[in-house]
Amino acid sequence: MTTQTTPETDERLPAGSKVGIIAGGGMLPVEVAKSLSAKGKAPFILIVEGEVTAHLDELSQFEHETLALERIGNLVTVLQRHGVTHLVMAGEIRRRPKLSAIKINLGLLRVLPELLKALTRGDDGLLRIVIKGFEARGITIVGAQDIVPDILASQMVLTKTGPRKSDWPDIEAAFVAAKTIGRLDIGQAAVAIGSRVIALEGIEGTAGLLDRVKGLRGHGRLAGRQRGVLVKCAKPQQELRVDLPTIGPETIESAHAAGLAGVVVEANRSIVLDSASVIEKADRYGMFVLGLRREELP
Amino acid sequence: MTTQTTPETDERLPAGSKVGIIAGGGMLPVEVAKSLSAKGKAPFILIVEGEVTAHLDELSQFEHETLALERIGNLVTVLQRHGVTHLVMAGEIRRRPKLSAIKINLGLLRVLPELLKALTRGDDGLLRIVIKGFEARGITIVGAQDIVPDILASQMVLTKTGPRKSDWPDIEAAFVAAKTIGRLDIGQAAVAIGSRVIALEGIEGTAGLLDRVKGLRGHGRLAGRQRGVLVKCAKPQQELRVDLPTIGPETIESAHAAGLAGVVVEANRSIVLDSASVIEKADRYGMFVLGLRREELP
Repeated sequence: MTTQTTPETDERLPAGSKVGIIAGGGMLPVEVAKSLSAKGKAPFILIVEGEVTAHLDELSQFEHETLALERIGNLVTVLQRHGVTHLVMAGEIRRRPKLSAIKINLGLLRVLPELLKALTRGDDGLLRIVIKGFEARGITIVGAQDIVPDILASQMVLTKTGPRKSDWPDIEAAFVAAKTIGRLDIGQAAVAIGSRVIALEGIEGTAGLLDRVKGLRGHGRLAGRQRGVLVKCAKPQQELRVDLPTIGPETIESAHAAGLAGVVVEANRSIVLDSASVIEKADRYGMFVLGLRREELP
Repeated sequence: MTTQTTPETDERLPAGSKVGIIAGGGMLPVEVAKSLSAKGKAPFILIVEGEVTAHLDELSQFEHETLALERIGNLVTVLQRHGVTHLVMAGEIRRRPKLSAIKINLGLLRVLPELLKALTRGDDGLLRIVIKGFEARGITIVGAQDIVPDILASQMVLTKTGPRKSDWPDIEAAFVAAKTIGRLDIGQAAVAIGSRVIALEGIEGTAGLLDRVKGLRGHGRLAGRQRGVLVKCAKPQQELRVDLPTIGPETIESAHAAGLAGVVVEANRSIVLDSASVIEKADRYGMFVLGLRREELP
C-alpha cells in the first residue's frame, strides 16, 4: 500500500472520489491499481472470483473483496459500502454467470430485468446495460486509459521493423473483417494470410483464434503461404470506457507461434499491456507491431 | 457404365453436349455423374488428385482422368481432348496449388495471369476468375443442381421437429453473420447459441467450425447454455453454379456432436446431399433441419 498523499485533482476523478476496480484476468487491473495508488488515490478492488489467478497476490495488497459472478446482485452494495464513486472495469472476464447458480436476494431483484437482458447480448450489448445500471446508481464508469493514459496504442510502428508492402493487403482485409464482426458484436480480431481473411474471432477470444491459426498453417487452402497478420480493432459502436481491444506480450508469443509477420491494433482505441515487453518480444522475432487509424486505410 | 440411350434434350444441355465434372471430395460429383449417366449422357470426370478419396472407385467407373492441382495449365487441354462442352465443378477442393510446384508449360502460361489473380482471392473471387477462363475457352459452366435439381434445399422444415420459438434469435443472428462474412468472401457458416453468434467459419470449413463449437461447449462465456444452431447460406454475390453451401449426413453428425439443436440452410441456394440420410439422422437425434429464405427473416 502506498501512503496517502494529497490527491491530485483530475477532470475525471474529482477530489473526494474513490475508484473501484472490477478486476478480471490479466495485467490491466494491476496497472490501474498501481497507477491510482501512485497518485495517492488508493483504490478498492473487487476481485471477480475465478477470473484473477496470476495477479491475485498483487491485487490483494490493496483494499479488496472477492465476489462470485453469481452474487452479482450484491455488487452495487459492496461498492457503496467501500465508498466507491468511480468504477473501472479492467481485465478479462471469461465466464458468464450461470443463471441456475445465481443467488436470489433483494439486490439481485433490483437488477434482474437488466441482467437477463444483458446476458443474451454480445459483450458490447452486455456491457452497455451493465454500465447504465451502475450509472443509475450513482457510480461513474471511467476507462482504464483515463487512469493510465500511456496504455493506449499510438498511431505508429512500435517495432524496429514495419509491415512490408506485401503485408498491406492482409492488413486491409483483416481490418475490414474485424470491424465487420465487431459491428455484429461477435469479436474484435481477424487473421489474414496471402491477402485473404482465414479466421475470425468468436467467443474463444484472441488466444484461441491464434491457436487455431497455428493449427491451420498446414491447411491445403493456405498452400504454404507465409507471413500474415492479426488485426484487432474496436467495434464501430465500441463503448470506449470498457473492453477496449487489448494485446500484451502473450499475444506476440501466440502470433509468432502461428507464424504471423505482425500484429496491428487500432490506434487510440486499443490497449497495449506491458508495451516494453511487447516490443522486445516482437523485435526478437522480427515481427512488426503497428497502431493504425482506420482513416489510414484506403 | 450405363448404355448410351437417346440423349434427353434439356435447355442447359443441348443435344451433342458432353458434360465434364471436375470432381473434388464428397458425394456430389458421384450424384452428378450418376444422374447424367442415367439420362444417357455419359460424363467425363476430371478427378482432382488428392481430393477424391472415399468415392474414387465409383468415379473411376466413368470415363476419367486424374490431374494434380499443380498441372492446372493442362486442364482445358484435357477437357477439350475428351470433347467436353459443359462443365460442372462439384465437390470440395481443400487444397490450393503450391506455386512452387506448378508445372510450367504452354497451357499454364496462357492462364497464368488469371491464375495468380485468382489465388489471392477468397473462394468466390477465385471461382469467378476460373469460370471466366473456361468460358473464354468455349466451355460452359453449369451448376450441379441444373443436372440433379432435387439436391437443392427446399423452403421447409425437412425433419419431424422444427425450430422452437426460442431458437429463432439464434437462427436470425447466425443468418445475418453468415451473410455478412459471405459478403467479405470469408466463409458461409455461423453458429449461434443463447441468441448470440459464438463462432464463424474461416478456411477450416464447416466441419472444422463444428469441431470448434464442440470444444467451446465448456467455455465459461456460454455459461452452460444449451441448444444453438448452425446456419449455412449463400454469399450475397454467390456464383450459383459453383460452390453452393452444402450439407450432408456428416454435417448432422458434427452438429449433433457440437450439441446444436438444428441446422438451417438457405432454401434454393444450398445443396443437401443424401437428404434421406440427413433427415433420418436428424430425426434420430431430435434435431431440426430447415430450408429458409432470407425474406422469411425479420
